[in-house]
Amino acid sequence: MPESPIRKLVPYADAAKKRGVKVYHLNIGQPDIHTPEVALEAVRNFQGKVVEYSHSAGIPSYRAKLASYYTKHGINITADDIIVGAGASEAILFAFQSIMDPDDEVIIPEPFYANYNGFAINAGIKVKPIVSSIESGFALPPIADFEKSITPHTKAILICNPNNPTGYLYSPEELETLRQLVLKYDLYLIADEVYREFCYDGSVHSSCMHLKGIENNVILIDSVSKRYSACGVRVGCMISKNKELMRTALKFAQARLSPPSFGQIAAEAAIDTPDSYFVEVLNEYHQRRNVVVERINQMKGAFCPKPKGAFYVVARLPIDDSDKFCQWLLEDFQFENQTVMLAPASGFYSSPEKGKDEVRISYVLNVNDLEQSMKVLEEALKVYPGRTI
Amino acid sequence: MPESPIRKLVPYADAAKKRGVKVYHLNIGQPDIHTPEVALEAVRNFQGKVVEYSHSAGIPSYRAKLASYYTKHGINITADDIIVGAGASEAILFAFQSIMDPDDEVIIPEPFYANYNGFAINAGIKVKPIVSSIESGFALPPIADFEKSITPHTKAILICNPNNPTGYLYSPEELETLRQLVLKYDLYLIADEVYREFCYDGSVHSSCMHLKGIENNVILIDSVSKRYSACGVRVGCMISKNKELMRTALKFAQARLSPPSFGQIAAEAAIDTPDSYFVEVLNEYHQRRNVVVERINQMKGAFCPKPKGAFYVVARLPIDDSDKFCQWLLEDFQFENQTVMLAPASGFYSSPEKGKDEVRISYVLNVNDLEQSMKVLEEALKVYPGRTI
Repeated sequence: MPESPIRKLVPYADAAKKRGVKVYHLNIGQPDIHTPEVALEAVRNFQGKVVEYSHSAGIPSYRAKLASYYTKHGINITADDIIVGAGASEAILFAFQSIMDPDDEVIIPEPFYANYNGFAINAGIKVKPIVSSIESGFALPPIADFEKSITPHTKAILICNPNNPTGYLYSPEELETLRQLVLKYDLYLIADEVYREFCYDGSVHSSCMHLKGIENNVILIDSVSKRYSACGVRVGCMISKNKELMRTALKFAQARLSPPSFGQIAAEAAIDTPDSYFVEVLNEYHQRRNVVVERINQMKGAFCPKPKGAFYVVARLPIDDSDKFCQWLLEDFQFENQTVMLAPASGFYSSPEKGKDEVRISYVLNVNDLEQSMKVLEEALKVYPGRTI
Repeated sequence: MPESPIRKLVPYADAAKKRGVKVYHLNIGQPDIHTPEVALEAVRNFQGKVVEYSHSAGIPSYRAKLASYYTKHGINITADDIIVGAGASEAILFAFQSIMDPDDEVIIPEPFYANYNGFAINAGIKVKPIVSSIESGFALPPIADFEKSITPHTKAILICNPNNPTGYLYSPEELETLRQLVLKYDLYLIADEVYREFCYDGSVHSSCMHLKGIENNVILIDSVSKRYSACGVRVGCMISKNKELMRTALKFAQARLSPPSFGQIAAEAAIDTPDSYFVEVLNEYHQRRNVVVERINQMKGAFCPKPKGAFYVVARLPIDDSDKFCQWLLEDFQFENQTVMLAPASGFYSSPEKGKDEVRISYVLNVNDLEQSMKVLEEALKVYPGRTI
């Protein structure tokens, strides 16, 4: 399993900190937002005497309440349509293992979340990437590109919506084209919607579960990690109306006994998080996105689309090689004793040579720190030896 | 992935309960013992504001403290030799994936913990079983049997010590023969020691980590599930002195981000569990084992070895087919409105037709309930239509 370009940078970040340089971490998906108090309180109030295995598909009361969360969001499912996993990570793995055999293929628009490669290796399947372009803001690639990639081994299309790393929010029209494609070729549509609550500018999230006539082909992947800023609880889920598929997935779930009990207790309570929490969080992320996008687009030779979701952007910078640039930022650069850690976009592309002049920026710092980070980045681009303008 | 014989019985147990029959569950590995208060208290006292991802290999302070636990038990390791997993389940999967490629083989003495099959399917590898016999109390099979099973694809031997399902505790001499075998053929020795603390009759556990001269070939699998009766926290680990192996395993760990944070908090605190806890727990299990073994051996045509570890026995009963018998107990039998749920041993054998007259009994009920269960079993054997005496 190859090492990710971000992880390769960690020793350089550590060394920079040892030299006394302040490093702004714009490279990670760990939000700084507080976990809802109601979730933490539930764990603090645990009164059990034995921390028992839960049901392999998840604690029944949690699944029932989770179903009501989805119903509230216009997704009509029951507890039986849910299998709880140790994060979306495990849920995606269950999905891959349940619908594909070794050497089967899943089509994923790139850039995509790098860990999908790891789950594919784990399941023994192949990822077929299709390029989405920064010029279109990373919109869904043309359907013709999908069709060109379909082989007899193709079993599924995977989208992340809103997208990590690009922040792109797929439109109802784009989902409709996927619906038709899935129908035509009898494929599965796996939609990773872990950023479903993070939509800006008044936009509304379209779930794969809203698509009519392909109910047995759709798998929703979700997680509480980002929604409630609770990445460490390790609770996600896979959801499908396809009973046979869920029976198979349950066997994989049974093979690892159960998902974490304390995490499920936190996740169940988190469903009672007041709406005001999300209003505040969304307002905060909205401001942050605007700072990052506006500041990058003011930098000479740089370009950043203005995505409507998640808490990431992928920006094009006037640089020769983003791996080198990100390492240089940590190893050789500082501005007023500060630098930034970014994620080279190469790690989010499966095609070689892609993303060389792109970086992913996670806006998981407060607005002041982000302003300062953008200043640092701007100064860096002026003096980076590999700058292209 | 095939369904286990135990899970097939669940609907029959549910139906029996619906009819008002009391079912004694001797089929499960979920202990009734309380989780140590110190572990629960640590979770209740969680003061963080964000439940963050932990390090992919586990929280550094937890790994450091865990290393000290092993040092206390004569196992000389450091935090860097440990990767924390979501239970022993994930740790075994990491081990399989790190040392084997698809179609490689692992030799396991049978009967063995049925979920090993699931992990092997997950990793795309093959299990080669070697039969251990009830007459020998399920001692290690002769080394000649291992050697007969070794092929160019054989990469590892896996033992569970003390054993689930048999309770057998391997002697230092048996481990020494494995050491020589591992040296001769340059194999890995994976030892699942999750029941390490559960040894009776004054016997002492021999760890695979004590074996000299094969340090780079040894992988210890452990878990806090059984030790602290905390199955739901989902915290286990793999341990090895082999640096290259651990680098590979870390990549698999990184691909799923991190193990559960709350579980690690509980597990770290649990290391401070007072010795008096284990004295009480061991005394309790010791009594339970004696009740089960003595009562079964009093039943006509039945035989139960007296194992020195874990909290299971495998007993031979005068029956035609343990799958049928276990189903009959739930479906057609009751004594004073009670029955027992046992695990057919067939599920613990990989070879077909093995274990037909054997059942696994988990002594996870209190002594009174166990006495009552044994009475129920005795009465059942008198009237079971498929009895062989």
